Amino acid sequence: MSRRKKIYEGKAKVLYEGPEPGTFVQYFKDDATAFNAEKKAVIEGKGVLNNRLSEYFMTGLGQIGIPTHFIKRLNMREQLIRQAEIIPLEVIVRNFAAGSMAKRMGIEEGTPLPRPIVEFSYKDDKLGDPLVPEEYIIAFGWASQQEMDDIVSLALRVNDWMSGVMYGVGIKLIDFKIEIGRVWDNEFQRLILADEISPDSCRLWDIETGQKLDKDVFRRDLGNLTDAYTEVARRLGVLPTNVTHTPTKPTLIN
Amino acid sequence: MSRRKKIYEGKAKVLYEGPEPGTFVQYFKDDATAFNAEKKAVIEGKGVLNNRLSEYFMTGLGQIGIPTHFIKRLNMREQLIRQAEIIPLEVIVRNFAAGSMAKRMGIEEGTPLPRPIVEFSYKDDKLGDPLVPEEYIIAFGWASQQEMDDIVSLALRVNDWMSGVMYGVGIKLIDFKIEIGRVWDNEFQRLILADEISPDSCRLWDIETGQKLDKDVFRRDLGNLTDAYTEVARRLGVLPTNVTHTPTKPTLIN
Repeated sequence: MSRRKKIYEGKAKVLYEGPEPGTFVQYFKDDATAFNAEKKAVIEGKGVLNNRLSEYFMTGLGQIGIPTHFIKRLNMREQLIRQAEIIPLEVIVRNFAAGSMAKRMGIEEGTPLPRPIVEFSYKDDKLGDPLVPEEYIIAFGWASQQEMDDIVSLALRVNDWMSGVMYGVGIKLIDFKIEIGRVWDNEFQRLILADEISPDSCRLWDIETGQKLDKDVFRRDLGNLTDAYTEVARRLGVLPTNVTHTPTKPTLIN
Repeated sequence: MSRRKKIYEGKAKVLYEGPEPGTFVQYFKDDATAFNAEKKAVIEGKGVLNNRLSEYFMTGLGQIGIPTHFIKRLNMREQLIRQAEIIPLEVIVRNFAAGSMAKRMGIEEGTPLPRPIVEFSYKDDKLGDPLVPEEYIIAFGWASQQEMDDIVSLALRVNDWMSGVMYGVGIKLIDFKIEIGRVWDNEFQRLILADEISPDSCRLWDIETGQKLDKDVFRRDLGNLTDAYTEVARRLGVLPTNVTHTPTKPTLIN
């Protein structure tokens, strides 16, 4: 790893130069941050789980025809991805009020929204990723109107599919964040899903108990984050070998 | 049941007059038919499983904002539904070539399609439910162009969500059939998902083994149909009590 050129280091991931032009190696760290990095910790095993879960979601989304940056998983913490020009937006889809939106609008967390809401934050740590109306995005030239229309359609498709995946394993998809990048295929420019999809970037509540199975466990000190992410991975059948919790079997004494 | 007025009897279901105006009671039979009813059998437990599975899928689709005819499950074999004017079409969404389409087009079963294909059959047993181009539907007045546009959008949303549900439990959604009805809310007419969603109306293949978990098991004499449907219900956590297969536990002898 030390011989590779580091391209960018973020809060939870590092990008290295990839083996082929147009590729990166995306490394998942165990670092967790919240509240614009005011709260920090190292959560053992988080990176391994998110590498697997993001592979799982991106693979499935690719199968329904949503283009993603994911090429293949390389090892426990790394995946090969396609290089893309990231649009500096957090694209957030909300099905139920939670987090900053619940607070800002004075709506109780968990209240179902009348319909899924797609909103955008401008990615800028110094400004604290401020919420921006679509008008700002067009006016400041971060994306074109056509791109924004395509992004909304893509985000809603991801929402329908992810809601289904979670419903199938007894989890409610409260909201999630995605990032979008531009790539060029010959002279054609198109948008692809980039970054990651994991319990770091989704809110996931158990349907029966309401138990949180996402980064809010860390943000709000609700317990062990790895246990929560492991539960999501276990239900989806994507547990990496080294973090498998073997179910306890009765011991038979001769 | 004998005191209620029978409205309609189909191959797999019976509709009775409901307790309130604008409602029906939909009863799920154990009858299985294939090849336009040339092949027939009674499959014990199928109706119970399909009642539960259709409840499960319609409830989840309702939660993502797809209107359905489902109101509530009444008992093991019956559910209360909203009365709708059924558009006489089978709306079929295909992700992989299979069945009649594979045969007609000379494509090997299981071949991924370049993108999901929505197609329509005219519901008429005497004619054998012939495939019809959208032009026929508009020309014969079975539905308007606006309705067809809305039906395609709705069918693709159902496909994204159902693909997600199945992906989450290790199943590939090959194709499925839905039916659409019209309802009036005050003076506004809108479309709702009607009929049922169950392994009778979907093709479901295990992702790992390719094992069929749908009505093709009956059509092609591939084994016990109830076992296949029970496996789908088990993975989704929706097993009705009386058909639960209790997992074998080790017996401890004192």
